[in-house]
Amino acid sequence: MTIVEYRPEPSEFVWTFGGAPPARKVKPGDVIRLWTEDCYAGKVRSEQDLVSQVCEFPFLNPQTGPFYVDGAKPGDTLALHFVSIEPARDIGAATTVPFFGALTSDHHTATLQEALPELVWLYELDRQRRTVTYHAKSADLTLEFPMDPMHGTVGVAPAAFEARSALVPDSHGGNLDTPEMRAGVTAYFGVNVEGALFSLGDGHARQGEGEACGTGVEVAMNTVLIVGLIPGMLTPWPRLESDTHLMTVGAARPLENAYRVAQVDMIGWLADLHGLDHMDAYQIVAQAALAPVAQVCNPIYTVTSKIDKSYLPARPAYRGTHAELREQAAQLLR
Amino acid sequence: MTIVEYRPEPSEFVWTFGGAPPARKVKPGDVIRLWTEDCYAGKVRSEQDLVSQVCEFPFLNPQTGPFYVDGAKPGDTLALHFVSIEPARDIGAATTVPFFGALTSDHHTATLQEALPELVWLYELDRQRRTVTYHAKSADLTLEFPMDPMHGTVGVAPAAFEARSALVPDSHGGNLDTPEMRAGVTAYFGVNVEGALFSLGDGHARQGEGEACGTGVEVAMNTVLIVGLIPGMLTPWPRLESDTHLMTVGAARPLENAYRVAQVDMIGWLADLHGLDHMDAYQIVAQAALAPVAQVCNPIYTVTSKIDKSYLPARPAYRGTHAELREQAAQLLR
Amino acid sequence: MTIVEYRPEPSEFVWTFGGAPPARKVKPGDVIRLWTEDCYAGKVRSEQDLVSQVCEFPFLNPQTGPFYVDGAKPGDTLALHFVSIEPARDIGAATTVPFFGALTSDHHTATLQEALPELVWLYELDRQRRTVTYHAKSADLTLEFPMDPMHGTVGVAPAAFEARSALVPDSHGGNLDTPEMRAGVTAYFGVNVEGALFSLGDGHARQGEGEACGTGVEVAMNTVLIVGLIPGMLTPWPRLESDTHLMTVGAARPLENAYRVAQVDMIGWLADLHGLDHMDAYQIVAQAALAPVAQVCNPIYTVTSKIDKSYLPARPAYRGTHAELREQAAQLLR
Amino acid sequence: MTIVEYRPEPSEFVWTFGGAPPARKVKPGDVIRLWTEDCYAGKVRSEQDLVSQVCEFPFLNPQTGPFYVDGAKPGDTLALHFVSIEPARDIGAATTVPFFGALTSDHHTATLQEALPELVWLYELDRQRRTVTYHAKSADLTLEFPMDPMHGTVGVAPAAFEARSALVPDSHGGNLDTPEMRAGVTAYFGVNVEGALFSLGDGHARQGEGEACGTGVEVAMNTVLIVGLIPGMLTPWPRLESDTHLMTVGAARPLENAYRVAQVDMIGWLADLHGLDHMDAYQIVAQAALAPVAQVCNPIYTVTSKIDKSYLPARPAYRGTHAELREQAAQLLR
Repeated sequence: MTIVEYRPEPSEFVWTFGGAPPARKVKPGDVIRLWTEDCYAGKVRSEQDLVSQVCEFPFLNPQTGPFYVDGAKPGDTLALHFVSIEPARDIGAATTVPFFGALTSDHHTATLQEALPELVWLYELDRQRRTVTYHAKSADLTLEFPMDPMHGTVGVAPAAFEARSALVPDSHGGNLDTPEMRAGVTAYFGVNVEGALFSLGDGHARQGEGEACGTGVEVAMNTVLIVGLIPGMLTPWPRLESDTHLMTVGAARPLENAYRVAQVDMIGWLADLHGLDHMDAYQIVAQAALAPVAQVCNPIYTVTSKIDKSYLPARPAYRGTHAELREQAAQLLR
Repeated sequence: MTIVEYRPEPSEFVWTFGGAPPARKVKPGDVIRLWTEDCYAGKVRSEQDLVSQVCEFPFLNPQTGPFYVDGAKPGDTLALHFVSIEPARDIGAATTVPFFGALTSDHHTATLQEALPELVWLYELDRQRRTVTYHAKSADLTLEFPMDPMHGTVGVAPAAFEARSALVPDSHGGNLDTPEMRAGVTAYFGVNVEGALFSLGDGHARQGEGEACGTGVEVAMNTVLIVGLIPGMLTPWPRLESDTHLMTVGAARPLENAYRVAQVDMIGWLADLHGLDHMDAYQIVAQAALAPVAQVCNPIYTVTSKIDKSYLPARPAYRGTHAELREQAAQLLR
Repeated sequence: MTIVEYRPEPSEFVWTFGGAPPARKVKPGDVIRLWTEDCYAGKVRSEQDLVSQVCEFPFLNPQTGPFYVDGAKPGDTLALHFVSIEPARDIGAATTVPFFGALTSDHHTATLQEALPELVWLYELDRQRRTVTYHAKSADLTLEFPMDPMHGTVGVAPAAFEARSALVPDSHGGNLDTPEMRAGVTAYFGVNVEGALFSLGDGHARQGEGEACGTGVEVAMNTVLIVGLIPGMLTPWPRLESDTHLMTVGAARPLENAYRVAQVDMIGWLADLHGLDHMDAYQIVAQAALAPVAQVCNPIYTVTSKIDKSYLPARPAYRGTHAELREQAAQLLR
Repeated sequence: MTIVEYRPEPSEFVWTFGGAPPARKVKPGDVIRLWTEDCYAGKVRSEQDLVSQVCEFPFLNPQTGPFYVDGAKPGDTLALHFVSIEPARDIGAATTVPFFGALTSDHHTATLQEALPELVWLYELDRQRRTVTYHAKSADLTLEFPMDPMHGTVGVAPAAFEARSALVPDSHGGNLDTPEMRAGVTAYFGVNVEGALFSLGDGHARQGEGEACGTGVEVAMNTVLIVGLIPGMLTPWPRLESDTHLMTVGAARPLENAYRVAQVDMIGWLADLHGLDHMDAYQIVAQAALAPVAQVCNPIYTVTSKIDKSYLPARPAYRGTHAELREQAAQLLR
């Protein structure tokens, strides 16, 4: 196994999917050990570091990449298997930012109201106990939530000559902000340009479903992933596979459209895997799919559809890619 | 404990929340053993029984009730604790109905396209093994899903002199269609009229999140519930409590508004229970709340917010109503 | 011509469509001279009269009616021709109300922000010069806008045993808040219950498209209308006809669904009138329909579709009802 | 006056805003005589030329440009005054495209339904009589609509290092598809990058409000415009000014957000021009703004807000730019 190491300098951060030259070239089968900075570009270090003061638009949500994958071309599917995603610091920061988040007006849900207060909550991350610790500001209350590290942002260069801000999710992936993007999972993306040009960032030590305040518990990450390539298979929207679930992610507004996109894609996937027509697959989704909200704060919203693999006959998706990469990951961890 | 038994005749079905005279009078603390017909008014018995042919609008989603609760008045909260919800038949029916469901145009998301095929899937319900069995029509595929019985529709008479169709959810409850409305759960509703006038129906042997095709595995139910009343406590939107979770249900369109309503209500609830300001409670919701979609098919959509009670200090909600009713339920089951 | 006069006492106001007994019985062809109170039930008389202090929910938007129309039955269409709509006072009031309006969060678009300031603007109405006069509060600025009187709320009893708040529009009409509901126009509504049971109210001396602040220039109205009945013709959504335009009104959320409903209904109407298939009628709508937003503040939003009758061959809609009622109105005004 | 002529070859078409090198350099005050190809890249010439067969994604909606404006820098406003917009052919084509348009499911409003029929309607354009002529396919019906030429797509390079498909509108302009973008109008755009890099295309001989079928009467255009630059003035969203109206365009989903953005921007504009606070300007908008839907078919929807300038005291917007460019245009036409 070739192991590629990459820790970008701040000057090497990228701010878009598409429109940036490759940082590294990799091959299918390569392992990448990389580091990602947090969504604040590392500038929120204390409760006094308000985003609107220490960060400068558009230098938000820096990505590590892009990685050029040898042989990847439009019409293929890129598979990224997350071997491990581990916080690289002991403190994570969640913030409110004026006119950003699900429970405030924002630049699209425009109102005449004042912004909510701008605040920073620092969470202690205990990597042994796997906890993140919250401290209330208005009362003497300390809470521990389970640590559940994930990448909010993973994606490839978009189609149609576009370069999209890393703050936005769409069919190319990007700022999906689903807590399902955790270690042990394989993420699939349709390749739009030669080399796929994938990047990732925006680590969260955890987040609630919907990412209501606009951020998770944001932290730099040390991440190990394995690159796979499935030639000649289209993937219209981002998909995920774990040992237990098949998952699709829809990105759209309003939120019901994100739900629809995720479910229609799941129906297509199930129909293909199990030789069903769409109405039969619709019925499986209607009675058996979970549909957690992913985020309701970015310019485009996301919803995840999840099907328990144990409900279905064993039919390897993507020619068995997940099992194969899982096995490779196991060797790596041995 | 007074036990009230009620099995409505078809002529006694009610089709609205509000606008119907009480079927029975009950007192706080009473146990009700009732039966609810399925959403098809029992008319879908075979795969040939297409809803558009055997059912007649508006005679859909019959409710059992309303129950007049002695002493309930506007400003109080009604608590309904579900002791048991058990399918009353061995077969459940899921259907597609022209221009109804999440993945078709409908009367509001109006398009010029043809309707999807109208179909009936019959599921065998095994009450011992706790499974519901699906048969594909287009392939030789049989799947077993876990049985997880619930009521899609529970609510009280609405405010403002309204009578609302039982097909619609709103702040009075109604057709919420959240799979969280299962046995072991206490549901809270704000009382809008004297006697509260609650009804329920629309049993599902299970449903996926979002109820994508427009129905769950619909079946008549034998249900036992205990009535509680919390005087002088307002409940703005339906709330649920289980042994493990606090839950709120938002009902609105577009779906992001249902999410917002559920989360803002959860924030108010947490702030009250734990003496927090709204920004601190917002942060807890942002990092710790789950947000499964409930349904995306009714005239108003629903999203549930869930907080794990183990994350929080023990503070009994609604003056300990859930624990009390749970204890009463335990006696009943003994 | 029978002329029915009706000026309700405050105790006779109705607050819902459906669920109220008839105030008067009328026959097709009857003229009704009626008076409607303003949406504040007449309680906002000075800039100190804040809605949240002087009005009491749900006693908002009082309706005059309902009128029982002899012979009207489900499947028929009710036609209401507005002969005149004239302000009954010299002052109209526009207000902001906490968490109500298009440019604030509200009970459905729920956020954690503070409400906007609650204010009253009084407009002088000059019925000779046909102007309404605005005075800014924050600057020395006085503006005159054209008077354009209309009824925000007109409708019939809804289907499915419902009673709907007069604050809500839907397929039965209700709080449509389209400025097209002015004198000279015939409004068509599908009849859902025997007698149709129509009501009206919510006069505006004028309003902007969208009714952004939540109110128009609200004022009591003296209105003369003629009642028509078209037996055996269905009207799925409210329609309007003037001498120059055919109009449909869609009511739904999100706003694109209100647009869709209005356009699909217009397509059906044009297809019927001109013997076209839906694709050809779609094309006419696509290139020739106007689509002004009606309101973005009520629990359900509305959009109007308008087609210039001069673009189309003369084919009388609804068997020539508009021309006939227009002629009857002309006699009345002679 | 410098007059710049530019007629791109097909190989010079650009498909994005941002991400393309300048085609020409111009100076403020320059007149540009340019030609734009239609949205089909000229490939739909007969009723047999179905878009899905003759066009190839993403080679749709070719733009003429970009033009680099000397001295334009972020923080400035670019003004484009349309002297004339004239169809360059005698035939315009409107089409339906599978899963594109307001009255069909699409890639975001995803359903399982079949696509609508794919059709082409050819319109004869009479540049003397100023008419466009429609022929029904399903009946013997020919209609004449007024010719009202416009550009569907005008914009500058976006911020945040993005390159956006010419099919998408947003705060940089792009595929706004408002019929208000006609000759005699000055369009204002905030400059995001050095040189502004504006492009335009997508001529329509006319379109209905909402562009329901997904296209207007599409045609190549000969267009004359004058370039203006207002240094040091921000323009957050596209604005338009005619001799009679101030206009803003909001771009967002759902459609109510496009409405909100347009109205909030209008409020800011009026408040600045007339020294009002936002509540007073809100009131003017609420009672006096028109709000026609622009389009409901692109990935992001648009709504226009319009205020009649005659309602307001004369205060030149943008330091009198419109009047100045209008005067320059008059000289040109003399």
